[in-house]
Amino acid sequence: MAHQNPAVPTVPDRTQPEMPPTRWGDPAAAAPLPDAIRETVGLLLPVRDTPAATDVATPATRLADDDLAALARIVGDGHVTVADDVRRLRTRGKSTPDLLRQRSGDLADAPDAVVRPGSHEEVVALLAHAEEARIAIVPFGGGTSVTGGLVAAREGTHGVVSLDLGRLRRLLAVDPVSSTATLEPGLRGPEAEALLAEHGLMLGHYPQSFEYASIGGFAATRSSGQSSAGYGRFDEMVVGLRVATPRGDVRLGTAPADAAGPDLRELFLGSEGAFGVITEVTVRVRPLPEQKSYEGWQWPSFAAGAEAMRTLAQSDLLPTVLRLSDESETAINLARPDAIGGDGAGGCLMIVGHEGAPEAVAAKQAAVARVLEAAGGTPLGHEPGESWAEGRFAAPYLRDALLDVNVLVETLETVTFWSGVDTLYAEVKQALTGALGDDAVVLCHISHVYATGCSLYFTVVTGGGEDPLARWLPAKSAACEAIVACGASITHHHAVGTDHKPWLTAGIGEVGGTVLRAVKDALDPAGVLNPGVLVP
Amino acid sequence: MAHQNPAVPTVPDRTQPEMPPTRWGDPAAAAPLPDAIRETVGLLLPVRDTPAATDVATPATRLADDDLAALARIVGDGHVTVADDVRRLRTRGKSTPDLLRQRSGDLADAPDAVVRPGSHEEVVALLAHAEEARIAIVPFGGGTSVTGGLVAAREGTHGVVSLDLGRLRRLLAVDPVSSTATLEPGLRGPEAEALLAEHGLMLGHYPQSFEYASIGGFAATRSSGQSSAGYGRFDEMVVGLRVATPRGDVRLGTAPADAAGPDLRELFLGSEGAFGVITEVTVRVRPLPEQKSYEGWQWPSFAAGAEAMRTLAQSDLLPTVLRLSDESETAINLARPDAIGGDGAGGCLMIVGHEGAPEAVAAKQAAVARVLEAAGGTPLGHEPGESWAEGRFAAPYLRDALLDVNVLVETLETVTFWSGVDTLYAEVKQALTGALGDDAVVLCHISHVYATGCSLYFTVVTGGGEDPLARWLPAKSAACEAIVACGASITHHHAVGTDHKPWLTAGIGEVGGTVLRAVKDALDPAGVLNPGVLVP
Repeated sequence: MAHQNPAVPTVPDRTQPEMPPTRWGDPAAAAPLPDAIRETVGLLLPVRDTPAATDVATPATRLADDDLAALARIVGDGHVTVADDVRRLRTRGKSTPDLLRQRSGDLADAPDAVVRPGSHEEVVALLAHAEEARIAIVPFGGGTSVTGGLVAAREGTHGVVSLDLGRLRRLLAVDPVSSTATLEPGLRGPEAEALLAEHGLMLGHYPQSFEYASIGGFAATRSSGQSSAGYGRFDEMVVGLRVATPRGDVRLGTAPADAAGPDLRELFLGSEGAFGVITEVTVRVRPLPEQKSYEGWQWPSFAAGAEAMRTLAQSDLLPTVLRLSDESETAINLARPDAIGGDGAGGCLMIVGHEGAPEAVAAKQAAVARVLEAAGGTPLGHEPGESWAEGRFAAPYLRDALLDVNVLVETLETVTFWSGVDTLYAEVKQALTGALGDDAVVLCHISHVYATGCSLYFTVVTGGGEDPLARWLPAKSAACEAIVACGASITHHHAVGTDHKPWLTAGIGEVGGTVLRAVKDALDPAGVLNPGVLVP
Repeated sequence: MAHQNPAVPTVPDRTQPEMPPTRWGDPAAAAPLPDAIRETVGLLLPVRDTPAATDVATPATRLADDDLAALARIVGDGHVTVADDVRRLRTRGKSTPDLLRQRSGDLADAPDAVVRPGSHEEVVALLAHAEEARIAIVPFGGGTSVTGGLVAAREGTHGVVSLDLGRLRRLLAVDPVSSTATLEPGLRGPEAEALLAEHGLMLGHYPQSFEYASIGGFAATRSSGQSSAGYGRFDEMVVGLRVATPRGDVRLGTAPADAAGPDLRELFLGSEGAFGVITEVTVRVRPLPEQKSYEGWQWPSFAAGAEAMRTLAQSDLLPTVLRLSDESETAINLARPDAIGGDGAGGCLMIVGHEGAPEAVAAKQAAVARVLEAAGGTPLGHEPGESWAEGRFAAPYLRDALLDVNVLVETLETVTFWSGVDTLYAEVKQALTGALGDDAVVLCHISHVYATGCSLYFTVVTGGGEDPLARWLPAKSAACEAIVACGASITHHHAVGTDHKPWLTAGIGEVGGTVLRAVKDALDPAGVLNPGVLVP
């Protein structure tokens, strides 16, 4: 029952520049590693300048002129390109392995063309044509996949098209009574928030990739953001989806929740382009918060802080942001040694953020503080919270600067039930240091909590050695093996892509794999939708 | 990571007697219509004693001795029966049409045998055998379906087996750290709560059918209970499922939430026995509340009360129970004319219930009361709340007593977004009175609210006439047509069964139907799992 926005706006200008193929983010924000950090890291790890390859050749397109003309008949002449530089920008995502491959000059995964549809109907027509012409379609939103979600298998296809959704960037409808809004998939996080802010509304979804990742990508990968404690996972925000498939289109979500059979929204959320292309997403929105208040709390140990998080979650008393760094991450994160405890003597830093109307913030803040103090936490005031909020999207730039000096940085994440957290934490750390050696620094934080469990997000920093990619991949495999051996999930919010596929059936079983395959075969019998991704 | 319960209890004794085939609930609780009500109703509607048929013949079983012997080899001799009285008790569910058919002596839908497996493994073996032998399997938990979920299509099968899950009634595991418990599907609501209460825990799921409906049924139908505002829908409580299918078994739910592809739990929740048989359900549990406090509030109109509910839901400030009767339901529900407003002069009654620790209840109660008073509500104190809580499971008994005097009573429910509630309410009422005539009394309440919308639950009371079933079915169809014309969902918490199937694709589209069919064909190619139910 969403009301059509009476004045549907034209597609807004991009607020962020394109990301370069070898780095994260805004090229203007790229900077070499600060000397101080270089010196500190250099004490622990071998550091050497390692620039990206410059003599890079994009493979020739496999699509013939006739193929390209057929695509252009659907989307218009100006919206199909085989230009090398554009295809290079649509090659792979932003995992460290992706960046290492790009830096080495390996563009083997470049798409054969980039196609930019201007409407849902053009997407439907493209999928029908792709099925007939056996052209693989890889939806491209923000290009921020870190699990190989943009690397379609090319065998059996006549070419791979990067389906760039960047022209689908409108706010289609706002229903202020129902607190919903309908967004097009190509909107990046800040673009969506800017459009909603014109109505005094917000979504409140802030993953690390927020500045570049897209609405369609959030839905297709079951994203979760830094305010998940207060606003939920992205899949919890979604009330409706429109999906284009080779079998036609489907609108799902006639109501907030119902009992009309299985919830098929939950089948397309997380479908990673393998079942169809999400062309509209209707989400729950909220009023812009009048107040934001972020605090730091100190804990004597990771376990003590985690226990307090569990208490909050099981009391249904969650702040908007709740994040706990382990001892290692707390130590590394400290820009100043006096920032915690006055002496840099360790402990664990928790960020607690409250957003909303002032009286609600004050009441929640007081109730949460009572629980945290009773559990042994020490309030550190607003400075650590504000510092975290200010730098929250900066980590990937630091990764680039470290890769520039051959220091390998990568993250991985998992989720389990509370009773399994200690074991999972120990086993994943052990797997990573076992594979990488004792010079590997493994940091961890909890940033998504539930009544029944929480996520663990690991960051690994180690020397790149002669071949950083060959060094990392076995460590990633070892961590995945440890995760599934613990009965935990292979990913909390990074999706499956191609990188996690070998471990998917550990979580959903052979029968679960059969179900995914059956849905895939029914909707995409030619196998042209992001082939090789997700489906076992 | 659930810990096995160190001392797995033996299957507990049934706490409730079997329901008779023609009535709801405990036979000892059945009573004729009280004279006072009979007189009042008699002023408005023709009333005549209409006893159920007594010369009822259960159709002979279609299963041969060899078939029965094969089933007995799997579950043991004592757990297969073709006895007429047992099969009669497993015929259909508890919708008014079901009861009318039973009352008329129509047992055409009786199963050919009742089989009671004693373990997950026996269920797996039964499904494998059923596939080979082309025997339809209808899972039977509480027998409380009101949408024809127990009426399998018999064409193409050699017989229909009612798979009575009443021996699978154990609490398999409790994980107090993670706040989860693993329950077998045959446990009825009160049985599950009694087992959890031994650990100081509860589930908190109280649908109208609570006293008889089963854990497996709650999951298979996406049930929602009277405390959904505080504790969520049943599908929100579920963190894990084990499902037996003809293709083998699957365990889903390695974590509270994850991004490892589509959430396949949401595909089996609401699958109504058509994709497999749920043999274990892991749910979030909570500590038993120290305090329960139910209040009444008076509203000048249904719209004003609904608006207050919307404000609470969109402020994330929901009590445990939140229910609002419209003017008609408020008037009818009043046992005493002075119970509301002092003069019975109308208005709408809202029930607001808070449960939890005393200080949390007090804080929430105060915050909710501030919103309700600001929105124009008048507090009526605890009496109306306690009166509602006391009689909350009694309505089906009154229905039986009214059917005994040929007064037709039936309910139906739907859900939509807030901006569509007024229209949906008016259109469904109009459809019902249009079909049934002006002597039909249509009552409505809202009892499940979300940030983006709410359910509407209608109760219809009208004279049965010569053929109550023939009178009701067109009215039900008219209401369903009105619901889908409004873009609302065909059911909020009663599932699809066979009764709602004609309107399912109005909600999920042809592509959604294709997906359900694909999953069905992959897991149950022989079509023996509750055939005719759910899948278009």
